Amino acid sequence: RPQKGRYREFMQCDFDTVGTDSNTADIETLFVIHDLMEQIGFSEFTIRVNDRAILNGLLEKLELTEKSADVLRVLDKLPKIGREAVAVEMVEQVGTSAAQAASVLDMASLSGTNNEVLDQLDSLLAESEQGHKGVASLRELFDCVGAAGIPAERVRLDVAIARGLDYYTGTIFETFLTALPGIGSVCSGGRYDNLVGTFSKESLPGVGASLGLDRLLAAMDELGMLQSESTPADVLITQLAAGRTAEYLRLGRLLRAAGIATEVYPELRKIARQFKYADQKGFPLVVVAGEDEFSAGNWQVKNLLSGKQVAVPEAELAGHIHTLLTAGDPQTDR
Amino acid sequence: RPQKGRYREFMQCDFDTVGTDSNTADIETLFVIHDLMEQIGFSEFTIRVNDRAILNGLLEKLELTEKSADVLRVLDKLPKIGREAVAVEMVEQVGTSAAQAASVLDMASLSGTNNEVLDQLDSLLAESEQGHKGVASLRELFDCVGAAGIPAERVRLDVAIARGLDYYTGTIFETFLTALPGIGSVCSGGRYDNLVGTFSKESLPGVGASLGLDRLLAAMDELGMLQSESTPADVLITQLAAGRTAEYLRLGRLLRAAGIATEVYPELRKIARQFKYADQKGFPLVVVAGEDEFSAGNWQVKNLLSGKQVAVPEAELAGHIHTLLTAGDPQTDR
Repeated sequence: RPQKGRYREFMQCDFDTVGTDSNTADIETLFVIHDLMEQIGFSEFTIRVNDRAILNGLLEKLELTEKSADVLRVLDKLPKIGREAVAVEMVEQVGTSAAQAASVLDMASLSGTNNEVLDQLDSLLAESEQGHKGVASLRELFDCVGAAGIPAERVRLDVAIARGLDYYTGTIFETFLTALPGIGSVCSGGRYDNLVGTFSKESLPGVGASLGLDRLLAAMDELGMLQSESTPADVLITQLAAGRTAEYLRLGRLLRAAGIATEVYPELRKIARQFKYADQKGFPLVVVAGEDEFSAGNWQVKNLLSGKQVAVPEAELAGHIHTLLTAGDPQTDR
Repeated sequence: RPQKGRYREFMQCDFDTVGTDSNTADIETLFVIHDLMEQIGFSEFTIRVNDRAILNGLLEKLELTEKSADVLRVLDKLPKIGREAVAVEMVEQVGTSAAQAASVLDMASLSGTNNEVLDQLDSLLAESEQGHKGVASLRELFDCVGAAGIPAERVRLDVAIARGLDYYTGTIFETFLTALPGIGSVCSGGRYDNLVGTFSKESLPGVGASLGLDRLLAAMDELGMLQSESTPADVLITQLAAGRTAEYLRLGRLLRAAGIATEVYPELRKIARQFKYADQKGFPLVVVAGEDEFSAGNWQVKNLLSGKQVAVPEAELAGHIHTLLTAGDPQTDR
């Protein structure tokens, strides 16, 4: 049984910049995540950012490069199982020393403003070319976030996120909703400069992220951000005369072809019942024809808001209804 | 390995009318299928229609009601395995007599215009109340198809379709593309008056159909109906001055916030290369700033169509570009 917001199948919406390893593309990916979340209607969210080069720099310094995939897999459990359990797993399952595990955890637990953490990382990784490059990239990213006027609390450096997946090579993004941290990251991604290389001989740098639509919809549902909407058509065609279904349906198609949203009442019932249905659903206009109207080639159009009813020849019907719907604006007048 | 256009997972788009057993709703379902196919861009397609009441009437007459699910399951194989193999399966697997199997197949093989087949069914099923009702419903349906002006060849009575699924109780629809019959039905449905009853105590009549989106897209792809589209943004912001990425990215966000589709060239490259990229992709406008412009608070805007270049203060930039894009209409002038 999957957790809430986690499904066996899921739908995601991806955006990627492929063909450049420039940090500009990473920063714009972050901007897209931010603006997307805001446009969807969230204001309380945090995009956590990290760079694999920082983790790799530390692992290099600690001589754990060979074990990096396992170290990162265990490190990813930090929010769930806590520091001590992670340390135990690193020693027992990955085979690090207790001191190595402690160093990894120390770095993952650095705290302060983004710039304070970057300063600490800079001195910690001073000797690692890779680590230094990761710090420089993130520094440029946070500078651009500031210059763009994005609220500082929405983008946080989090040295603990590793995204488990081995294919991320640089920047890593995860987006959490403040109100629903338990639902997990709703928009995740990062730089994957070797991904294409695993499928073809050509290596192609790329950066991007995925919006998890199902998880996001589950969150929006839980937060009451989704409303179901009732959208009655503009016109209800009632059925009054027996054996005339083909005529009523033909008129329905004729009005729809003229761009008028039309419903044909599906049954031959007392006319009062059909009008009551129109009233309850909120149709502004009802069209009626009995045998007299069929003989005369007319349809009766009743405006349920004004109460006015007029007989209109079929050739003028769509135009007449268009006029009532626009000029008279019966839908907004009520 | 699934067949072409058949997937283990699939996406479908449903439309249903629930709460009425009126034939009007069945006929409108057919209209929706027809208009949907036409709107998507198909002209060569056939909606095959049948009514379970006709099959049930025949099975009743042949005293095969108890075996109806098995008979219909085998009958559904008719287009694939042919008449003789179906007859053999009915006798061997379902346990009908050879004469019973022949009667079912005779009815499923009736040919002629829709009305001719209905006339034959009417006399064949004269004693079956159910069968007679099914014929009457389909007669009304074909009358309405004619009155609506839908080409007769697009809606065909096919007594052989049973849709396997046990939950259909009345009308049955299947839609085949003339050019790709092998891909199967792309829009199927029917009346299911007992479906809700199987899940709850309340019984609720319903009729509807599903458009198989994946299968339809596979078909459109095969028929060359899908085109990939290149949609360059309106403006390319080039990067000219080193260390100014935050400025270029900030301008990108500023223009986008003003509703202008904008791409920031991701790298600091020779300006000629960035202009060549803009040309090849079809950007109408390029924005450039070097150190001089940053000092003056200006941006250079180059119209790639007219070749004109002007310096514009940042505060006026979005307005200036809006004017170029609308009044000058550089995109459509080319």
